[in-house]
Amino acid sequence: MSQKRVFLFREGNATMRDLLGGKGANLAEMTNIGLPVPPGFTITTAVCGEYYQAGKALPHGLLDDMKSAVAEVEQITGRRLGGSEKPLLFSVRSGAKFSMPGMMDTVLNLGLNPQTLEAMVKETGDERFVYDSYRRFIMMFSDVAFGIPKHDFDNEIFQVFKYKVGAKSDLDLTAEHLKEISAQFLAHVKAEVGRDFPTDPWEQLQLAVEAVFRSWNNDRAIFYRRTEKIPDEIGTAVNIQAMVFGNAGDDCGTGVAFTRDPSTGEKSLFGEYLMNAQGEDVVAGVRTPVPISTLQKQNESIYNEFVSVCNKLESHYKDMQDLEFTIEHGKLYMLQCRSGKRTGPAAVRIAVEMVGEGLISKDEAINRVTGSHLDQLLHPRINPDSIPSAILLAKGLAASPGAAVGKVVFDADTAADKGKGGNGDQVILVRDETNPDDVHGMLAAQGVLTARGGKTSHAAVVARGFGIPCVAGAEALEVNATNRQFHVEGHTVKEGDIITLDGSTGNIYFGKLDLIAPEVSGAFGDLMSWADETRRLRVRTNADNPQDAQQALEFGAEGIGLCRTEHMFFDKERLPLVQEMILTKDQGIRDKCLASLLEFQQNDFEGIFRAMGGKPVTIRLIDPPLHEFLPSHEELIRETTELQIKSSTNPHTLAKLNEKLKLLAEVESMKESNPMMGLRGVRLSIIMPGIVVMQTRAILQAAAKLTKEGIAVYPEIMIPLISTVNELKVVQSLLEDTAKKVMAEHGTAVSYQFGTMIEIPRAALTAGEIAEYAQFFSFGTNDLTQMTFGFSRDDAEGKFLTQYVDQKILPTNPFESIDQAGVGRLMKLAVQEGRASREGLKCGICGEHGGDPESVIFCHQIGLDYVSCSPFRVPIARLAAAQAAIRDRMTVTTADK
Amino acid sequence: MSQKRVFLFREGNATMRDLLGGKGANLAEMTNIGLPVPPGFTITTAVCGEYYQAGKALPHGLLDDMKSAVAEVEQITGRRLGGSEKPLLFSVRSGAKFSMPGMMDTVLNLGLNPQTLEAMVKETGDERFVYDSYRRFIMMFSDVAFGIPKHDFDNEIFQVFKYKVGAKSDLDLTAEHLKEISAQFLAHVKAEVGRDFPTDPWEQLQLAVEAVFRSWNNDRAIFYRRTEKIPDEIGTAVNIQAMVFGNAGDDCGTGVAFTRDPSTGEKSLFGEYLMNAQGEDVVAGVRTPVPISTLQKQNESIYNEFVSVCNKLESHYKDMQDLEFTIEHGKLYMLQCRSGKRTGPAAVRIAVEMVGEGLISKDEAINRVTGSHLDQLLHPRINPDSIPSAILLAKGLAASPGAAVGKVVFDADTAADKGKGGNGDQVILVRDETNPDDVHGMLAAQGVLTARGGKTSHAAVVARGFGIPCVAGAEALEVNATNRQFHVEGHTVKEGDIITLDGSTGNIYFGKLDLIAPEVSGAFGDLMSWADETRRLRVRTNADNPQDAQQALEFGAEGIGLCRTEHMFFDKERLPLVQEMILTKDQGIRDKCLASLLEFQQNDFEGIFRAMGGKPVTIRLIDPPLHEFLPSHEELIRETTELQIKSSTNPHTLAKLNEKLKLLAEVESMKESNPMMGLRGVRLSIIMPGIVVMQTRAILQAAAKLTKEGIAVYPEIMIPLISTVNELKVVQSLLEDTAKKVMAEHGTAVSYQFGTMIEIPRAALTAGEIAEYAQFFSFGTNDLTQMTFGFSRDDAEGKFLTQYVDQKILPTNPFESIDQAGVGRLMKLAVQEGRASREGLKCGICGEHGGDPESVIFCHQIGLDYVSCSPFRVPIARLAAAQAAIRDRMTVTTADK
Repeated sequence: MSQKRVFLFREGNATMRDLLGGKGANLAEMTNIGLPVPPGFTITTAVCGEYYQAGKALPHGLLDDMKSAVAEVEQITGRRLGGSEKPLLFSVRSGAKFSMPGMMDTVLNLGLNPQTLEAMVKETGDERFVYDSYRRFIMMFSDVAFGIPKHDFDNEIFQVFKYKVGAKSDLDLTAEHLKEISAQFLAHVKAEVGRDFPTDPWEQLQLAVEAVFRSWNNDRAIFYRRTEKIPDEIGTAVNIQAMVFGNAGDDCGTGVAFTRDPSTGEKSLFGEYLMNAQGEDVVAGVRTPVPISTLQKQNESIYNEFVSVCNKLESHYKDMQDLEFTIEHGKLYMLQCRSGKRTGPAAVRIAVEMVGEGLISKDEAINRVTGSHLDQLLHPRINPDSIPSAILLAKGLAASPGAAVGKVVFDADTAADKGKGGNGDQVILVRDETNPDDVHGMLAAQGVLTARGGKTSHAAVVARGFGIPCVAGAEALEVNATNRQFHVEGHTVKEGDIITLDGSTGNIYFGKLDLIAPEVSGAFGDLMSWADETRRLRVRTNADNPQDAQQALEFGAEGIGLCRTEHMFFDKERLPLVQEMILTKDQGIRDKCLASLLEFQQNDFEGIFRAMGGKPVTIRLIDPPLHEFLPSHEELIRETTELQIKSSTNPHTLAKLNEKLKLLAEVESMKESNPMMGLRGVRLSIIMPGIVVMQTRAILQAAAKLTKEGIAVYPEIMIPLISTVNELKVVQSLLEDTAKKVMAEHGTAVSYQFGTMIEIPRAALTAGEIAEYAQFFSFGTNDLTQMTFGFSRDDAEGKFLTQYVDQKILPTNPFESIDQAGVGRLMKLAVQEGRASREGLKCGICGEHGGDPESVIFCHQIGLDYVSCSPFRVPIARLAAAQAAIRDRMTVTTADK
Repeated sequence: MSQKRVFLFREGNATMRDLLGGKGANLAEMTNIGLPVPPGFTITTAVCGEYYQAGKALPHGLLDDMKSAVAEVEQITGRRLGGSEKPLLFSVRSGAKFSMPGMMDTVLNLGLNPQTLEAMVKETGDERFVYDSYRRFIMMFSDVAFGIPKHDFDNEIFQVFKYKVGAKSDLDLTAEHLKEISAQFLAHVKAEVGRDFPTDPWEQLQLAVEAVFRSWNNDRAIFYRRTEKIPDEIGTAVNIQAMVFGNAGDDCGTGVAFTRDPSTGEKSLFGEYLMNAQGEDVVAGVRTPVPISTLQKQNESIYNEFVSVCNKLESHYKDMQDLEFTIEHGKLYMLQCRSGKRTGPAAVRIAVEMVGEGLISKDEAINRVTGSHLDQLLHPRINPDSIPSAILLAKGLAASPGAAVGKVVFDADTAADKGKGGNGDQVILVRDETNPDDVHGMLAAQGVLTARGGKTSHAAVVARGFGIPCVAGAEALEVNATNRQFHVEGHTVKEGDIITLDGSTGNIYFGKLDLIAPEVSGAFGDLMSWADETRRLRVRTNADNPQDAQQALEFGAEGIGLCRTEHMFFDKERLPLVQEMILTKDQGIRDKCLASLLEFQQNDFEGIFRAMGGKPVTIRLIDPPLHEFLPSHEELIRETTELQIKSSTNPHTLAKLNEKLKLLAEVESMKESNPMMGLRGVRLSIIMPGIVVMQTRAILQAAAKLTKEGIAVYPEIMIPLISTVNELKVVQSLLEDTAKKVMAEHGTAVSYQFGTMIEIPRAALTAGEIAEYAQFFSFGTNDLTQMTFGFSRDDAEGKFLTQYVDQKILPTNPFESIDQAGVGRLMKLAVQEGRASREGLKCGICGEHGGDPESVIFCHQIGLDYVSCSPFRVPIARLAAAQAAIRDRMTVTTADK
């Protein structure tokens, strides 16, 4: 291959992310716009591909390319790799197209060996600094290149040594101490890998490059990519850059900063730094850094230079930047810049304010905010009324906003087992500090609490990225993960105890506090109003009661797309009536039960119609199989077996046994092998029409009553699980009769429609016929996904779907984001053929996909009229609909050219 | 409406079946080719539609049309309706486009009243004949027009009267007796309906016409249409024809005949007649008729005339005819002709012989034979070896061929409950005689046995039509339906006892005799060879063992389209190994189990490959969920509950309890909500690849061994339940490795292919992608139907599918015949897109639909390469494939014009 493998920073630019990775491209860009960047070069992502294709071997010729690049760096710096005077040291860092913070490997101080150590000591006169750098280098390099855990070095040698010599802080260690530690480190490496630690800087360099490529496929990187949907094929670049030292003395330091506050979005420089430290000390949260504003007092000229760099970068990139910098002997160096991760509230505020500042357009602002940003914004917060009486355990840093309640767990695996994706418990992950191995547990938790680390610690960055509330650095906590408990201010909190976190204040409370929904205004309101001006797709909500309907209206819902009627049957007062209706053979009793249920349902619908005040309400008639309302089959088997044994000795149990046996026989007669595909939905209505006649009567009576009161009502009655138009014909004509009867009885006309769910593949395939009867379509993509894939969601998600996504057999869980090739193809076909048969047929979606941004965009593309989702997803759907419309416009514009 | 409502026979012809019904069209045709047909006219089927559309009222103007038609009949016959001299009497009969024998109503002798009675007596001088006609008229008319059961007249008045006067036969009754009986009949009518029996012949006529229209929608007619797939909308015509009398004296008679033997197809006149009788006496089996050959001796000239009529009709219609005739005072009249119903063997023989006679072409012969004809031909017969030791209970008439074994039942409802479509027991319906109300029970039975009636009795005709073995008129039987038993020659046979019928000999045996498969040769062989020359579609079989494979080869199978591999796992020797493999956590033990299973499976495949000798064999890898191989969950709940109670009093049960609890936990962990859509098929292979690796090894080892022996082997390895191409990629590449390893180990190349089932809607929708990997497609239409409809077959067929077909929500059960609009659309799309991506992709079907003629024709149309079905359906599929090819040719020919 003749492609260029190595790019000096001066040869690249910000558009070359595919080839140079994000970090490399931005180092190049910064170099070219004249910022103080230590010189260096990038080995391309394509080389990573070559490395793997060759069975993990660096390509021939790469070394020569590296040599030329190193020569230029040597020339710029006036230093020499392995030189016995002014030796050149390198940092070696990974850098993929998409940021994967902390997931891959880094080596600092590369190039140190006995010869360069001596030269460095000679040059700096600071033996302590040189050996501190050396012990860091040995540890990082050995971890990365030889797979010897850092923990071996850090805990078993370094901390033990500190204890022995009575050093409280790293700063208490002398040069001699560090020399001794370095020697112990070297010995440990030899014991572990059976070879001496490499002293040839070129060997060090090649081993480090290979290690970075290998780290692309370490477990935590793979896990991160899967979570963030980053393709596996793109590979990582390697950035090799001349070292500058933040730990070379008290006029040195290192820090990270954001050009605006990544938590709130406020337009003010936000960051932290540590004097006399290397970057890893800040990121790992080992020492607690100080705010960037302190720098202003300590060194105003450096501070001013830094502010002007920040401004330059923000107006250059037109986005909030996340920066890494080092100060070496009073000189500022920029080591990294990238678009900063931000919380949802920050994303919205920054996008809206940048429109105000003329930096970006409204369309760009809409595109800058993601569904998960809004999701965070809409997180619940603690009800202030509940705070005065709450037990405040401690206060940490407000690291990721939103409030969370959950049971305490002490490790990531337990969190993953019990939390989201596991048992579904609400859990709070409590750790001393987190590291990349903890991410899967953080994702499963409602919230994260750490005892150590700052706002830019791993825990804080990851939690913000995923919109999980986080309190970091709550130093009062003594976490004892082994005993599964933590102590704080005289309290002991054990695993399983419930706590409440406030990620916006840093407060930690004992027990469960009342959470309330967020208010939505300000920048959020502006953004949403721009989205509403932009989008074509309407957004409705799924709501089964007036409270949810009200909540959804506040979030901008334009109607109800799915009101399930059977949830109401599970109410404690009603369930006995439902059971009696199902079990009786006496039509008289059945009619009486239905009459009682009619009253309840009519009240339900009145409430919802009132709440929606004139907006359309789509009501789905009964869907689940009737046995869902009856006692458990297994429980009855247990009970009857028990009673059978007992009744041989106790005649009094015989009557009870007979009753239970009768019930068991009933339940057995209704049992189904595959209830998902059994007697439910419209099938039930055909076999037992009494229930849907009652429901239709309840809907129309409620509507007629409100119509008389002058309240506008638009019920859309939806018949579920149609697989052939004839089912619709039969049921719809029966219900039309009921509707007409009710209107005649009340002497009032009601505007209503009958429509159907499209949730069975055959319904999609025969949509043309179905549209001759149905006045609207609503895609039930949950069932449609089940049938199209032949996946029972209940079984698949526990048994094989996770593995399918892990193994890339499926790109994502199709129950979360619409499978466009299969399910989507059926939807598109149904819309086209439905509208060919009934012009302007209203089409919507009411499956859970209606709140998934990718799916919303797809719904826009195939021409649906609306999506419907849970109340809290309504703003997300509004935003995604706007993004879809913008994408359309861009396509049109491109096509016009 | 201006359409002609009434057609005189001279105005119609045989092509007008839609309008005039089959009977009317043929009466017209016979009239116009000069045969002796009593004059009359037909009221069209369109009037039946008008009648129902008007809410059951005859249209205005119809009476005038009828008056003109009657006037012409009066003119031809020289008689007058209601005339006081030479009165004209009419028969009024239904007649739909498709024959529905005995399903609708008939009235004979219409026009009798006090005045015409007197005139008839005067004219014939035979008072007994006239009143015999009158009492029949009153009974039939009252049954039909007023709904008074015939049974009332026949049992409660007529038989009582006979007993009182000591008459053994109807012929013992005098004219006075019949007058008295008629008077009692008239009194009964008045008592029942509160009005006098109508005396105005025009009122009689209108009431009779309305009654015939009404009878279109009686229960048995509706049931018959559903069974025979006759549309409800087509309605019936009414044929009004001048009466001729078979019961006017000893030179009179009436009979039915077939131009060839409808049981065997032999080219000789076959029929029965009764002298001095009306047609109903023959059909109802009340008196036992004599063979048509007797007529030759009794009246040679009439017989010769009849033979020449038969020859004329057969060469005119080019098909075997079913005729009704009457002889009135030595003159022959033809009352009906139609294509005769025939047994399967007869259909084949007649078709083949007519080709030999130059009457029809080979294509026509192929089209004349149906799948159910062949099905009968392939019916099993009694093993002759088992006959010598069998207990022969009695001998009846060989009314419908084939042998049947089953439990005796005494009424149609019980037969329907217990038999096919019910519990699935094998039952024999035993009745004195059958009537149209019994048809649903006959359909559910393996065979039918009656104590009364001839070969043209209801039981015989219906059984032949449906291919059910039948012994009729076994007069030695004393059937006591009330006590659920019959007596014969000193034996008492009770409900539930097993008997064996031989419908080809009329023998009835006690107990279960050994049945063997039919031999296939002669006419069947000729027809099949023509079919094979004609068809494009290949026919394979579904077979899991060498015996089935052998049977299928004899029936002409060209390969195996589906060999299920998991059936072999249920073998007594292997199941414990399978269970251990599933339950163990120890990989070593699992590998050992798999190694043992490998040996078994290799032997299975060797046997099948040997049997198929070089023909392709498609082997499906494991498909069902593993929990199918484990003990029942419910049973374990019962056992553990029991043990739990007992172990409190008996410590010895504790160990057993613990073991069972462990097993229960395992079974519970594998339990699924919807196993049909759970962890099975390829999903299982991805999660637990050991099993399919073992199976692939077994297939390749067997193939390699036989290849070395010089036996050709073409295994096609089929991966089930694919929903995305990635599943195939993962599993196929794993198995390719195994295959290559085995070939290397054996040093032999084997020709094999990997392909996939298309049985999930998404697989069909993404067939283009899948075909990039799959070397063949096989449609699994059972699952594809389940997923496309969202119907779990296990649940649907018991819970709603019957009702769906009854209510015409579905035209047929989609598990029996492919749903072309939904499932078929997916299949067509998959074939097209699969072949677009892989040219000439081999496509077949292995669902049960492969043996359904309509489905086979559809498979031909969408371009499949083969169908696969159970061994006994192979000839049916070959025939249907030929019919499909002929249909194609005809379409092409038409298009060429």
